Amino acid sequence: MLDRHPTAAAKLTDILSAITENRSTPAAEIGAARQRIADSDAEVGAFLRLAPDESLDEAASSEGPLAGITVGVKDIYDTRDMATEHGSPIYRGHRPVADASLVSMARLAGAAIIGKTTTTEFASLDPTPTRNPRNLDHTPGGSSSGSAAAVAAGMVPLAFGSQTGGSVIRPASFCGVAGFKPSFRLFPTIGMKTFSYTLDTAGLFAATAQDLALAARLITGRDFGTGSLADGSGLRIGLYRSAVDGEVAAEMQAAVEEAARLLEGSGATLVTVEEPAALTAARSCHAAVQGFEAVMALSDEFRRHREKLGPDLGAVLDHGATIEPAEYDEARRTARIGRKAASALFETVDVLIAPSALGPAPLGLASTGDALMNKLWTLTGNPVVNVPGLAASTGLPLGVSVIARFGRDALALDVARLLQAMIAAPENGG
Amino acid sequence: MLDRHPTAAAKLTDILSAITENRSTPAAEIGAARQRIADSDAEVGAFLRLAPDESLDEAASSEGPLAGITVGVKDIYDTRDMATEHGSPIYRGHRPVADASLVSMARLAGAAIIGKTTTTEFASLDPTPTRNPRNLDHTPGGSSSGSAAAVAAGMVPLAFGSQTGGSVIRPASFCGVAGFKPSFRLFPTIGMKTFSYTLDTAGLFAATAQDLALAARLITGRDFGTGSLADGSGLRIGLYRSAVDGEVAAEMQAAVEEAARLLEGSGATLVTVEEPAALTAARSCHAAVQGFEAVMALSDEFRRHREKLGPDLGAVLDHGATIEPAEYDEARRTARIGRKAASALFETVDVLIAPSALGPAPLGLASTGDALMNKLWTLTGNPVVNVPGLAASTGLPLGVSVIARFGRDALALDVARLLQAMIAAPENGG
Repeated sequence: MLDRHPTAAAKLTDILSAITENRSTPAAEIGAARQRIADSDAEVGAFLRLAPDESLDEAASSEGPLAGITVGVKDIYDTRDMATEHGSPIYRGHRPVADASLVSMARLAGAAIIGKTTTTEFASLDPTPTRNPRNLDHTPGGSSSGSAAAVAAGMVPLAFGSQTGGSVIRPASFCGVAGFKPSFRLFPTIGMKTFSYTLDTAGLFAATAQDLALAARLITGRDFGTGSLADGSGLRIGLYRSAVDGEVAAEMQAAVEEAARLLEGSGATLVTVEEPAALTAARSCHAAVQGFEAVMALSDEFRRHREKLGPDLGAVLDHGATIEPAEYDEARRTARIGRKAASALFETVDVLIAPSALGPAPLGLASTGDALMNKLWTLTGNPVVNVPGLAASTGLPLGVSVIARFGRDALALDVARLLQAMIAAPENGG
Repeated sequence: MLDRHPTAAAKLTDILSAITENRSTPAAEIGAARQRIADSDAEVGAFLRLAPDESLDEAASSEGPLAGITVGVKDIYDTRDMATEHGSPIYRGHRPVADASLVSMARLAGAAIIGKTTTTEFASLDPTPTRNPRNLDHTPGGSSSGSAAAVAAGMVPLAFGSQTGGSVIRPASFCGVAGFKPSFRLFPTIGMKTFSYTLDTAGLFAATAQDLALAARLITGRDFGTGSLADGSGLRIGLYRSAVDGEVAAEMQAAVEEAARLLEGSGATLVTVEEPAALTAARSCHAAVQGFEAVMALSDEFRRHREKLGPDLGAVLDHGATIEPAEYDEARRTARIGRKAASALFETVDVLIAPSALGPAPLGLASTGDALMNKLWTLTGNPVVNVPGLAASTGLPLGVSVIARFGRDALALDVARLLQAMIAAPENGG
């Protein structure tokens, strides 16, 4: 049995209960989050800047259902009251006119946008100085580095990120928090800096899958599951065996197998699902789709400010500029075939489970790790939830991905809630 | 036989030939366009602001393939050297950090972005003061009002617009210019203000379909047809009969029938294609898709600046805010079914032809006209080219749409080039 790591301390559901039961107030919760950031962020480095007092005062008086919930927002989302720099010196001090859609919708629901979190440059690869709160010598992952770290450190109960390759699920896994990449385009990406317009997906971080489901519902007005799964009876769980599993660390493989055993033990039917060739092919065309689109999306920055781009992003764009339209079109066709193959998998299983990363967070801050386990599902647009709780012998988290059919986000979250509860249950070693 | 109207005076292909043959220079062409704007725009009102001298000086020295081509850009596209106001007082004086992707790509090809053209508010319905150069008492259409008018008046050989309902094809029809709405997402929309993210499509205006094809190729590096169709032999042309054709004016029906006869006379096989029920249903769900997405896209503006919105946009958003996620999801499913039905139509015909608008440009500037003929193809994402040349008895243009299978933009442009040439041929009354 693998070790466990503790849940992140600030839980959205608990905070809202405390407010509802008059044990706390929105203003008190906002104040507490500010204090936690003041206490912890010097060593973590999750936040770039905090909201002005007047914004937080306004939020404190909200009567929306998320009043009292502080949110860290990745610095590729436009915010009207704070600079939005996309991790790039080209945007130093840039102040958008309007909030990004998801930011505006969260404010409308009463949330307090407490600050902007670090992002790799344009949500690509060049790392930030942010540290992993589970072990400061390790990367928190990227590109949503600050959002994952802010939740993991217990500074805020909710944070916004985005995923074009593996930028939500991977840092969630590395930092030991719940992460949610919804079905493609289910969350609006308007006002989020574009990197790749057929891949960019807005996502959330929270302490638990339950918190993710509640936040998603209150922000969008959609159903994100009921948490009604008392056990796994009736569920068909697919243990996904991909063509690139050979690169996954043994401890991470063990984590997925432990998750499978727990679900099976609670009544689910477990089957092994071998990756179809169409999905192996789809994974391998992610880079061509991303690179070609990024060159268009960042056309002006690339053309006029090449010298201000970091080495990793520069290399991505230099390569992207060599991709001909025909190669891109072929990659998009391969992706479309992969999308159909992914849907077909869910004819026989309800959800798939798979590693959220190759292993625990790598040592050092020079790289944010590898998106190999994530980019296929970003390309296909399937919803993915990272379930935290399992840990390597070093104590570093090992996240498990729950993947559902396109549009079945509620099911992914419900199974993730069940799995997270089972991992944390004392009788299971939690 | 219907009347003819003259082609817009500034032709991209002719200008590039003159430069190649040393009969002109980029600097001379830029200067000539400035003079034409100075001469004509006081009465037309197509331009909001012109580029600073240094931008045009830089463009004049470009060696790109579009050097000397002046471009009017709808004011929902970000430009780094000019304000970008989206037709809204909320964005008064707003200066983006970077160019929109299409603007940057055009500059990279050597084009001179000469100024920003009028747009209805956020590319919706509230009209601009722009007049139709074919008859100043009539609307130029919208939402890309200024771009269509600037080309029609011969001020510039190329202009950028966008279409969410009928905002490229309708004003192109009203103003008697060629208009191109590419397959959905073929042109990048990054840096273009979002109204509806599954509908918004970047598009072009020029004097001729030939000019559109050349501009599209030089900006994107893609194939947009060869113009090799000497006649219609081998082509299967579908005369599209929609469920809403009863609303089309008799003269417009006559224009489409004349286009059909011309193509048939040149050797094409003409068939009548009755609209399948799936496409009638798709058209009717356009408003739900657009309204729901617009409320998210303009969330911050709608929430904080409701009083600064025009009456038409305000009504669209007020209604959009009443649309539940389930209704939107159902509308998206209907759209997806429609998309497949549209593809099936092209199993038996190469292209469809249909009215580009209900009739000629309406009298007055209080409305930009109706998008009923266009919104189905925006929803399905099929490429559409407006072919100009035919005119009502009043002299006002009557545009014919050439619609092709998704991704067959080159074919749509090739057939449009053939049709435009036939309309203009003296033996056919041109």
